[in-house]
Amino acid sequence: MPGSHCTQDIPNNISASTSSQLPTITELQPLMAHPDLPSEHGGSQENAKEDQVQPAGPTSLQRAKARFLKGVSYFSGDMEVFAKWMENQFFLLQLLDWVLRGAAQVMFVNNPLSGLIIFAGLILQNYWWALNGFVGTLFATISALILKQNRGAIAAGLYGYNGILVGLLMAVFSNAGNWYWWLLLPNIFLSMMCPIVSSALGSINSRWDLPVFTLPFNILVCLHMVATGHFNHHFPQVLIQPRTEFPNITWSEIDVAKLFMSIPVGIGQVYGCDNPWTGGIFIISLFISSPITCIHAVLGSTVGMVSGLALSAPFGDIYFGLWGYNCVLACIAIGGMFYALTWQVHLLAITCAFFCAYLGSAIANIMSRFGLPACTWPFCLSALTFLLLTTGYKRIFKLPLAKVTYPEKNLRFYWKLKKQEKMEKAEKERKGKEEEQKAIEDEMILNEKEQLRIQLERIEEGNGGNGPSDVINDNTNSEGLTLEVVEHGGEEGERNGDDNLTEVELADYV
Amino acid sequence: MPGSHCTQDIPNNISASTSSQLPTITELQPLMAHPDLPSEHGGSQENAKEDQVQPAGPTSLQRAKARFLKGVSYFSGDMEVFAKWMENQFFLLQLLDWVLRGAAQVMFVNNPLSGLIIFAGLILQNYWWALNGFVGTLFATISALILKQNRGAIAAGLYGYNGILVGLLMAVFSNAGNWYWWLLLPNIFLSMMCPIVSSALGSINSRWDLPVFTLPFNILVCLHMVATGHFNHHFPQVLIQPRTEFPNITWSEIDVAKLFMSIPVGIGQVYGCDNPWTGGIFIISLFISSPITCIHAVLGSTVGMVSGLALSAPFGDIYFGLWGYNCVLACIAIGGMFYALTWQVHLLAITCAFFCAYLGSAIANIMSRFGLPACTWPFCLSALTFLLLTTGYKRIFKLPLAKVTYPEKNLRFYWKLKKQEKMEKAEKERKGKEEEQKAIEDEMILNEKEQLRIQLERIEEGNGGNGPSDVINDNTNSEGLTLEVVEHGGEEGERNGDDNLTEVELADYV
Amino acid sequence: MPGSHCTQDIPNNISASTSSQLPTITELQPLMAHPDLPSEHGGSQENAKEDQVQPAGPTSLQRAKARFLKGVSYFSGDMEVFAKWMENQFFLLQLLDWVLRGAAQVMFVNNPLSGLIIFAGLILQNYWWALNGFVGTLFATISALILKQNRGAIAAGLYGYNGILVGLLMAVFSNAGNWYWWLLLPNIFLSMMCPIVSSALGSINSRWDLPVFTLPFNILVCLHMVATGHFNHHFPQVLIQPRTEFPNITWSEIDVAKLFMSIPVGIGQVYGCDNPWTGGIFIISLFISSPITCIHAVLGSTVGMVSGLALSAPFGDIYFGLWGYNCVLACIAIGGMFYALTWQVHLLAITCAFFCAYLGSAIANIMSRFGLPACTWPFCLSALTFLLLTTGYKRIFKLPLAKVTYPEKNLRFYWKLKKQEKMEKAEKERKGKEEEQKAIEDEMILNEKEQLRIQLERIEEGNGGNGPSDVINDNTNSEGLTLEVVEHGGEEGERNGDDNLTEVELADYV
Repeated sequence: MPGSHCTQDIPNNISASTSSQLPTITELQPLMAHPDLPSEHGGSQENAKEDQVQPAGPTSLQRAKARFLKGVSYFSGDMEVFAKWMENQFFLLQLLDWVLRGAAQVMFVNNPLSGLIIFAGLILQNYWWALNGFVGTLFATISALILKQNRGAIAAGLYGYNGILVGLLMAVFSNAGNWYWWLLLPNIFLSMMCPIVSSALGSINSRWDLPVFTLPFNILVCLHMVATGHFNHHFPQVLIQPRTEFPNITWSEIDVAKLFMSIPVGIGQVYGCDNPWTGGIFIISLFISSPITCIHAVLGSTVGMVSGLALSAPFGDIYFGLWGYNCVLACIAIGGMFYALTWQVHLLAITCAFFCAYLGSAIANIMSRFGLPACTWPFCLSALTFLLLTTGYKRIFKLPLAKVTYPEKNLRFYWKLKKQEKMEKAEKERKGKEEEQKAIEDEMILNEKEQLRIQLERIEEGNGGNGPSDVINDNTNSEGLTLEVVEHGGEEGERNGDDNLTEVELADYV
Repeated sequence: MPGSHCTQDIPNNISASTSSQLPTITELQPLMAHPDLPSEHGGSQENAKEDQVQPAGPTSLQRAKARFLKGVSYFSGDMEVFAKWMENQFFLLQLLDWVLRGAAQVMFVNNPLSGLIIFAGLILQNYWWALNGFVGTLFATISALILKQNRGAIAAGLYGYNGILVGLLMAVFSNAGNWYWWLLLPNIFLSMMCPIVSSALGSINSRWDLPVFTLPFNILVCLHMVATGHFNHHFPQVLIQPRTEFPNITWSEIDVAKLFMSIPVGIGQVYGCDNPWTGGIFIISLFISSPITCIHAVLGSTVGMVSGLALSAPFGDIYFGLWGYNCVLACIAIGGMFYALTWQVHLLAITCAFFCAYLGSAIANIMSRFGLPACTWPFCLSALTFLLLTTGYKRIFKLPLAKVTYPEKNLRFYWKLKKQEKMEKAEKERKGKEEEQKAIEDEMILNEKEQLRIQLERIEEGNGGNGPSDVINDNTNSEGLTLEVVEHGGEEGERNGDDNLTEVELADYV
Repeated sequence: MPGSHCTQDIPNNISASTSSQLPTITELQPLMAHPDLPSEHGGSQENAKEDQVQPAGPTSLQRAKARFLKGVSYFSGDMEVFAKWMENQFFLLQLLDWVLRGAAQVMFVNNPLSGLIIFAGLILQNYWWALNGFVGTLFATISALILKQNRGAIAAGLYGYNGILVGLLMAVFSNAGNWYWWLLLPNIFLSMMCPIVSSALGSINSRWDLPVFTLPFNILVCLHMVATGHFNHHFPQVLIQPRTEFPNITWSEIDVAKLFMSIPVGIGQVYGCDNPWTGGIFIISLFISSPITCIHAVLGSTVGMVSGLALSAPFGDIYFGLWGYNCVLACIAIGGMFYALTWQVHLLAITCAFFCAYLGSAIANIMSRFGLPACTWPFCLSALTFLLLTTGYKRIFKLPLAKVTYPEKNLRFYWKLKKQEKMEKAEKERKGKEEEQKAIEDEMILNEKEQLRIQLERIEEGNGGNGPSDVINDNTNSEGLTLEVVEHGGEEGERNGDDNLTEVELADYV
C-alpha cells in the first residue's frame, strides 16, 4: 500500500504543476505553437519512458541505430537541444536563430536549419525578394521584442513568419521593379505592425483556442496594396484585373510535364516563388524537420492542381502554382499539425485541401475586383473552418494550442494521452473491484463489533453502574475513528498509478 | 408531512436531472431548434397539466373538440408523435423523414408533412430544381451522419435545410440550363460541406446562444458562384451586373394585381421559386405546422413589397419577389420563433422586416458587383442583429436556443415560465408570513420553557442533586430537536408543488 | 481592538458593495464610457483625499486658485455637477442635455457645453446639415429610451453620437440638394435603428471589453447609401468612383498654407465639415472639456496630413481633410481615453494614427468601388486593433470600460491605482517584518512556558495530585487563546486604512 502511495504522489505533483502552468501559457501565447515550456516537461517525460522501454543490453546494431536517431534528433523536429544551447549565446546570434525559425514557421516548421535552407531557396529565386523577406522577418521580431511580447513565442519564430511574408510579397507585387530601395520604408513599417495585428487577432482567436495563422500578413499586405494601388507615384502595385471573358482552354494543349512541375511550384508559391527548384529546396527543408509535414505539403499541392483542372481554370494559373499554395498550407495545418494524425484526420486534411482550392478560386475572383491577389486568405479561412468543426469522433482529436509542436511530436502526445485514458479505465475497474472487497470486509468488521457489543451488554447487565457504559462510549468512539481511518486509507489506496495525472491533464484540454 | 416530502422530492429529482442534462445539450446542439430531449420532458408535463385542467365530466361537444385537437396535434407543430414512431422504423424511412424535415426547416418548420408539400411546390415549379434540392438535402444529411453530428439535430432536419438551399440555388443560378447532369458533382460536394460549415459557425455563434440560420448556404453558394463565375467552361453562372443608370419607373404603370401577387411570390422566392402557385402551396405548408409562422411570413412579404416601393425599386424586382423573401424569413425568426410572441415582439418583428428590406437592397447592390445574388445574407444579418439586442423589457423574452421549437410551443413555454415566476413570488410571500407566525409561536414555546425552568430551579433549590438537572438538559435537547424538525418540516411544506422545478429551470435559462 | 475592527469593517462593506455592483454595470453598459454610478463613488473618494492633502491654512492666492479650479470644474470634464443638477429638471431639458452630450460624444467628450459649441460650428457650416444632425441625435436618443436601454448610458449621450453622424452624413452625401425634406424620413428611421445596432454590437464587443465606437453609424450610413445608390429616384447619393489613372501630383504646386489649414479641416471632417472655422470651433469645444483630447486631436490630424504626403495622395484630398479625421479619432481614443496616458501610450497613439491613415487610404479605395465614402471605418478598425493588443508593459494600462470617463480623470484613476498598489506592497513588506518579530516573540513566550512547565513538573513530583495538572491545562488554554487574539489583532491592525478597498477594487479591474 505505501508503495502505491508513492507512485501516486509523484505524478500527482507533476500534473498539478502542469495544470497550474497551462492556463497562463494558453493566455499568454495565443499565437501558434509554443514548444518551449510545455515541451521541456513533456520531453523529459518521454525520454524517461523511452529509457524504460529500451532493453537492458542492446546489440551493436541497436546501439548504432540509437546513436543515429539521436544524431537526427539534433537537427530534425524543432531542434530543442539547439534552442536550449542558444539561450546562453550572444544576443545577435539568438536573433538570427529566431529570424531563421520565423522564416520556416510559414510552413509551421520551428527549425532554424529549415529556415536557412528556405532563405537559400529564396536567394536562388531573387536576391531582392530574399533581402526584403529578411528585413521583414528581422523587423517583425524586433518589434515583438519592443512590444514585450511572449519570449517563448518570439524564440519559436511565431512573430517572424508574418514579417517574412509581408516583406517578400510587397517586393513581389511591387510594380517599381527590383532594388527600389524606398520600398524598404513601408516594408519596415508594416513588418513592425505585424506583432500588433498578431496580438490583436490572438486576443480574439484565443477565445476559440485558434491560431492566427497568416491573417496578419493577409491583412497588412492587402492594406498596403489597396492603400497605394496600381496608380500610385511612390509605391505602385502590379495591375490585377478580374476576368471578363472566357479563358482559352484547349484540353489537347495540356502539358503534363508542366502539370507535374506545378506541384513543387505550388509549394514555392507559399513564399511567392515560381521557380520549381526553389520549391524543391523547400520540400527538402520540410522533410528535414518533419516528414509528415512534407508529405502533406506535396499532397496539398496535388489536390490544388487537380481542383484547378476540375474547375476549368486557365492552364497558366495551374502551372504557375496559384492553385497549390493555399492547399499546401491547409493540408499541413489540418494533417497532423493542429489535429493528431489519424486516418480520419488524414481524410479530413484532403477534404480541407479541396475546400481550400474551391475557396481559393472564389477569393481570387473577389480580390481581383480590388486589384488584389488572393494572398493566403483561402488557407486561413478554410483551416479555421475545419479547426472549428466539432464532431462525435474520438479519433479526430484537436490538440490544445499550447501543446502544438510538430506532427510527429503531436502524435506521440496523442498516443500518450490515449494510453493514459486506457490505464485510467483499467484503474477504475480495479478500483470498483477493490471497493467491493472492502465493503465485504467492512461488513465482517461490523458483525464482529456487534457481537462484541452484545457480550459487553451482557457483562453490564451483571454489573449495573456508570463505569461500563463509559467504556462502551469510548469503544464506539475509538471504533468510529478506526473506521474513518480505514476508509481514508481505502480511498487513497485506490487512486494510485497514473490516473490522477490523466484526470488533471484531461481537464485542461477540455 | 411525509406526503409533502414525497411530492417535493419527485419534481426535485426531475428538475435536477434536467438541469444536469441541459448544459450538455446546449453545448452539443448549437444549431437551431432541438425539440427532442427537452420537448419530451416538457411535453409530458404539459399533458399532465392539461389533464388536470380538463373538467371531470366533459360534454360530447368538448369530447369531440378534444379528439379533433388531438388529431390536429398528430400532423401540426413538429409532429412529435410521428417522430417517436419513426425512431423504430427502417433506416431509409427515417432518412426520408429527416430529408423532409430538412426541406421545411428553411422556414423554421420541423414537420415532414410541410416538407412533403414544399417538395410538391418545387416540382410544380421545376423538376430539375426539385431534384437538385432533394440531392442537396439528402447528401447534407448523410454528411452530417458521417461526421457524427448530433443525432437529435439531424433528426430535426437542422443539417438538411442548408443542403436543399445549396442544391436548389445552384440549379437556379446555373447558366448551363436544366438537366446539365455534371452540376450534381459540385452540388453533392458543397452539400456535404454544409455540416462542416454549420458546425464551425455553430462553434462561434453558440457563444452568444445564436443559431447559424442559413449562413452556411450563403457562404457555400456564393463560394461556388464566385469560384466559377459567368465565364467558366464547366459551371457557368447567370450574369448579374450592378445597376449603372436610373431605372425606368413610371408610377402610373404600376400593376396592383401583380403587386398583390408578389406576396406569395416573395414566400416562394425563399426557395428561389417565382411561381405564385408554388408560393401559395408554401403558405399552406406553413399553416399546417404553425399558423403564427404563416401569418408572419405573409406579413414579412408585405413589408418587403412596401419597402421596395418606398425605396423606388424597379417594379420588376418587386413583382419577382426579390424584396420579399428575406423579410419573410426575418419576420418569422423574430416573430415568435426565437422570441416568445408578445405585442412588443410582434412590433419588433415588423421593424426587423423593414430593416431587412433596407439591408437587402444594400447587400444586393454590393453583391451584384461580384456577379452574385443577395442570397439570404440580409435575413441572416438582420435577424442576428435583432437577436443580439439587449433591452430592459421583460416582455421581449429571447428563448434559450435549446428550448426553441415552434412559435405556439415557445409561447406555451413562456407562459409556463411566467406562471411559475408568479407562483414563486406568491410562495415567497406566503413563506414570509408563515415564518413570522412561526417566530411568534417559537417565542411562546420559549416563554413556556423558561417558566418550566424557573419552576424546576425552585424545586432544585429545595432538593440539591444531579438527577433533576439532567432531566432539564434532556428536556431542552429533545425540545431543540423537535423545534428543528418542525422548522425543517415548515420549510419543506412551504416549497411543495412546482416551484422547485422553477428555480432550477430558471437557473438554466439565465 | 474593537476600534480597529470598526475602521476595518466600514471600508470593507463599501468595497464589497462596489464589487457587487461593478460586474452588472459592465454587463449593462457595454457601450463607451459610463461615468455615472462609479464616478460618484470614485469622485467622493478623490475629494476626500484632496481635502486631506490641502494644507490647514491656505494663503489668499491658493484660495483664489482653488476657487478658479472649482469654477473650471463646473464646465470642464464631464460636467458632473451639472448632470446631477439636471436629474431633477423638466424632462425636455434633460433630453436637450442628452442630445448635446451625444453631439460631443463623437469626439469622446461627455460635455453639453462642448455639444452646444459643436452645434454652433455645424450651423456655421450648413443649416440643413445641422438640422439633420439634430434630428438624428434626438431620434436616436428617443429610440434608446423607447427600447429601455441603460439610463446612465443615454444620459452620457452614448446613444446619441451615432445618431448625429447618421443624420449629418446622410445630408452631406445626399445628391438631392439641401432642404429636400423627404430625407428626414430615412434619417429618422436609421437614427432610430442606431440603438438597436449599438446594443447588438455591444453584446459582441463586451466579450472583449471593447466599445462599439462609431460602428453603428458606419454600418447604417453605408447601408443607406448602398441601398439607394447614385441612380435612385427617391434618395440619390453623390457619385463616388474609384481612381483609374495616375493623379496629377506636382510637388512644386504644393500650397503650405492650405496644408496647415488642413489640420483644423481634418478635425471638422469628423462631422463631415470642410470649413476650417468650423474645425477651429470644434478644437475650442474639445479644449473646454479636456486639453489632452484637444492635443491628441490636433496631433492626429497632423499625422494624417503627413501620411497623405508620404503615400502621394492627391493634394486636394489632403487639403479637404480626408486624411485627417480618422487619425484624429484614433489618436484621441488611444491617447488617454481608453488607455491611461503615459509616454508609452502617447507613442502608441501616434503609431495608431499612422496605421489609421494607411488603413484609411485602403478602405477609401475599396469603398469607392461600391460608391461609398470611407466613413469612420478606418478609425474603428485601427482603434479596435490597438485596444485588443496585449503587451508585457505595465505602463500601457487599458482602463476597464466601465471606468472610462475623460483622459484627465482616467489618469487620476490610474495614478490612484498605482499608489494603492505601492502602498499595498509596502504594507506587505511591513506585515512580513511584523510577522518575523512576532515569531521571535512567540518563541520567547514558548521558551518561558516550557521553563514554567518544567518547574511545575518538579513541584508535582514532590506533591502528586490532580489539582496542579488542571492548573497547567488551564494555563496553556488561556495562553493559547491570548496568542490567538494577539494574532488576530495583528492582522486587523495591519490592514487598516485604504488597502482593503484596494484589494477588492483591483480584483474588479482584472
